[in-house]
Amino acid sequence: MYTLVIYDITDDALRLRIAEACKEFGLVRIQKSAFLGKIDSQRRKSLRIRLKEILGNNPGNIQIFLICEADMRFREMIGEPTGYEEEGIMFL
Amino acid sequence: MYTLVIYDITDDALRLRIAEACKEFGLVRIQKSAFLGKIDSQRRKSLRIRLKEILGNNPGNIQIFLICEADMRFREMIGEPTGYEEEGIMFL
Repeated sequence: MYTLVIYDITDDALRLRIAEACKEFGLVRIQKSAFLGKIDSQRRKSLRIRLKEILGNNPGNIQIFLICEADMRFREMIGEPTGYEEEGIMFL
Repeated sequence: MYTLVIYDITDDALRLRIAEACKEFGLVRIQKSAFLGKIDSQRRKSLRIRLKEILGNNPGNIQIFLICEADMRFREMIGEPTGYEEEGIMFL
């Protein structure tokens, strides 16, 4: 199972902390504010708790989706990512 | 089946056109640069073609995910969306 995290956070420092947590938990950046990866349910749960702690009461929205292997085959990509390659962006 | 569209586009006019196309095809904004909805495969195919036309050779990245009903039950949300409610943001 894949975990997809997308977020909408205006505060730069907070957004950076969210990105760092996603990386730390083994997800890979696929867009400026989107991370994807194969992690187990226990790790996903821990990630959720961490992200919740980081966001706290600050404004912002984080959504976590679970996507099975079968669905992931239908993933489609238009255009190329620009500027995130150096951060280890990956097309799983 | 749900269709999730996430995009990373710096040009304001272009980003607006992508958002308008997503709405036109029946998706609902769930974040600043993310739309979600239940549309059939034919409509998803047409949307993909339209988004590809709009982006053209401009820099940017659009990703389309298919998510089944079973996986959608595991969707998790942290924080509240801020400022998109007026545009018909919805938590499906």
